[in-house]
Amino acid sequence: MTPADRVTQTLARYLVNARADNLPQAVRDHAVRTFVNWMGCAVGASRHEAVEIAIAALAPFGGPAQATVLGRAVKVDVLSAALFNGISSHVFDFDDTHLKTVIHPAGPVASAILALAEYRPVSGKEFIHALALGIETECRIGNAVYPDHYDIGWHITGTAGVFGAAAAAGKLLGLDEQQMTWALGLAATQPVGLREMFGTMTKSFHPGRAAQNGLLSALLAARGYTSSEQGIEAKRGWANVMSTHRNYAEITEGLGERHESLLNSYKPFACGIVIHPAIDGCIQLRNEHALEAGAIASVLLKVHPLVLELTGKRTPQTGLDGKFSVYHSAAVAIIDGRAGEYQYSDAAVHDTATVQLRDKVTAEIDPTMPADAVHITITLTSGERLEKHVEHAIGSIERPMTHADLTAKFTDLVEPILGGEHAARLLEAGWKMESIDNIATLADLARPVEKT
Amino acid sequence: MTPADRVTQTLARYLVNARADNLPQAVRDHAVRTFVNWMGCAVGASRHEAVEIAIAALAPFGGPAQATVLGRAVKVDVLSAALFNGISSHVFDFDDTHLKTVIHPAGPVASAILALAEYRPVSGKEFIHALALGIETECRIGNAVYPDHYDIGWHITGTAGVFGAAAAAGKLLGLDEQQMTWALGLAATQPVGLREMFGTMTKSFHPGRAAQNGLLSALLAARGYTSSEQGIEAKRGWANVMSTHRNYAEITEGLGERHESLLNSYKPFACGIVIHPAIDGCIQLRNEHALEAGAIASVLLKVHPLVLELTGKRTPQTGLDGKFSVYHSAAVAIIDGRAGEYQYSDAAVHDTATVQLRDKVTAEIDPTMPADAVHITITLTSGERLEKHVEHAIGSIERPMTHADLTAKFTDLVEPILGGEHAARLLEAGWKMESIDNIATLADLARPVEKT
Repeated sequence: MTPADRVTQTLARYLVNARADNLPQAVRDHAVRTFVNWMGCAVGASRHEAVEIAIAALAPFGGPAQATVLGRAVKVDVLSAALFNGISSHVFDFDDTHLKTVIHPAGPVASAILALAEYRPVSGKEFIHALALGIETECRIGNAVYPDHYDIGWHITGTAGVFGAAAAAGKLLGLDEQQMTWALGLAATQPVGLREMFGTMTKSFHPGRAAQNGLLSALLAARGYTSSEQGIEAKRGWANVMSTHRNYAEITEGLGERHESLLNSYKPFACGIVIHPAIDGCIQLRNEHALEAGAIASVLLKVHPLVLELTGKRTPQTGLDGKFSVYHSAAVAIIDGRAGEYQYSDAAVHDTATVQLRDKVTAEIDPTMPADAVHITITLTSGERLEKHVEHAIGSIERPMTHADLTAKFTDLVEPILGGEHAARLLEAGWKMESIDNIATLADLARPVEKT
Repeated sequence: MTPADRVTQTLARYLVNARADNLPQAVRDHAVRTFVNWMGCAVGASRHEAVEIAIAALAPFGGPAQATVLGRAVKVDVLSAALFNGISSHVFDFDDTHLKTVIHPAGPVASAILALAEYRPVSGKEFIHALALGIETECRIGNAVYPDHYDIGWHITGTAGVFGAAAAAGKLLGLDEQQMTWALGLAATQPVGLREMFGTMTKSFHPGRAAQNGLLSALLAARGYTSSEQGIEAKRGWANVMSTHRNYAEITEGLGERHESLLNSYKPFACGIVIHPAIDGCIQLRNEHALEAGAIASVLLKVHPLVLELTGKRTPQTGLDGKFSVYHSAAVAIIDGRAGEYQYSDAAVHDTATVQLRDKVTAEIDPTMPADAVHITITLTSGERLEKHVEHAIGSIERPMTHADLTAKFTDLVEPILGGEHAARLLEAGWKMESIDNIATLADLARPVEKT
């Protein structure tokens, strides 16, 4: 066999032999940030209709109360928890993004292994290691086929994510090399997700089902359910069948040395990434000048062409519409100083002050403007002009969210569900998760006291 | 929208509006044959290692005892039963085949709806209707993309089968047109199965997981979980993403008039279809001449080229090897007059008389021989020569298995698991399934009395 024939085996061997002690501090820190951000998203969306429907539809068939649906009081079986948490963590489109592949890494991986960890106790340190390995696995496999695989129409978070879930769950289950190879084979045969589903609840189903499929793969392989040993690279394996382009070196080279998880990023705002520069700049101007909406005569945004193509809605009618309106987004940024889920509620898009300011916002395409940049000019009723040029929006690799930013985002999402004091305790435990003896205590903290 | 934009909707509308009373008698009869054959395969393989492993791996997470794993005493939840029965019904590779697409139609569909019917009572008549609709759905979708989709590397039984399961389960759940469209969308986003998995337990996982995915799709859609309304035909929908060729007329034209399920066929022998003509001819010669192995000097088979390419093993060492040996297969056909699972056991390939006769069998390629034909010359020790030309092997569309053939196959498979009298009762109920008030009584009969 040549190296190109041993992609799955090489990856499996790395996963099996990797040791938590060898994981660099920077990777560990990033994994914690990823997990805290993921928890916030999942708790925040735990009452979303998509989550409610999925739980209600499957409740009659569920198993023992083993694992937490983040933000909800009633436990479900491990496999069901993986599905539900994967749905809720993605349904706000507010989770982490590996920008090179547009994979949302945490959904498939964290959903699978947190549920598993509530059934099979594991330390925070080992959990973080498994999380990092899972993210590394899915992002590397994504790199090997991006962008062709995505362009064809696959929702790469579900199709590559299933490998991440299998790898991480397999690591926590202690699979040997043969079993890990089979787990990756079982994952390969269960890709989830067509991009056609974007705009419907099925989009958030993808990371949920990928989590569940990957976990199932690892559970079956652990018992000896056989599969291909070349699931990724075989002639009729995953990469050849699902992509017109493949670069296996992205999967097999520099394992343990180059860490894709360091390229993971977090969204500061609960909307598509193209309008983040405008929101960022408006918030900066607001804070620097203690801006009041009533003092503003006009807001002019010079934006990348995609901004108006994707988010040009002048008069949004629903909260979801608001996510596709750069005008609404600029208005809430100036009035509220933020753009979280509340700013994209149905109430928020009909708020009188917001509507008045929104109507003063105009946007012009500037073909030379980079995608993560914006130029903003605010003219006050006094005639004064305020300018702000944003080179890289907050949340980008170049300007990552700070610890304080992530804390504020988490709090915004979790407080309405768990209450302020409870949210603070969960967050504190999250930041310290590496020192927790049994990671299940974190899941326990993510359930409200009241039954829901 | 043009007709090509309404493929999913057209199919959903047909499924929702179809009435059992309008199903032609020939289609109903074929559905019964399909179901009886499927039950036999599933009960027969119910103790196979793949089934044992899957059940053991997932038992800790399973739900209430709602549905039967055919041939086993302990019930599992509905979704788990769909998976396990899908695995067991395919693991012998002895189930039904829609030859135009090489889809094995019953696995995904019957596994999903028998489990559902144990939870939501349904009459035999309505059950058969749903089964026929599910088979029609998966075979038509298969037709639309075959052979390109299969050639790329997809195991079409899993990738098209998921639609069949969703359609049939959706019919039994009483979905309206909107819900059925969503169920098909959720199915589209969950294809299962790469051909790379052939030769491993994961092959039989495909119809099982397709059954489960389709059932899950219908359950979610029934509660209002939204999905694409053009899951099959959209630019980034199932057919465009998963095939280089598409013919949507195969899906939408002649619904209710042309029935693909009439083209379903059943395997008389527990091995690859290419050696069926040789087995068929040897059994005929044996029965016509009361042949004894000791009286045979040589057996010469003139065969289609694929026979030696796929099944040319001279000295099989395991039962599974035996399935890839035309020599072993001819020998057991002459000695036992059959080629069921027993003839492909480890013991059978080492049986002295079988080995002696096997060594007298030779095979010659005849490039003019059709794939379902063979010419056999048996020379006796007396010098007498016996000849048999098989034009179409038993089990082909041209020479379907008779009621008696299917009965014998069922009995062979089920007797070792349930015992003779119990097997006969299950078979009798199966043939009369259309008149059963609650199809769950059939599932009840498929469980042994002893706990296993």
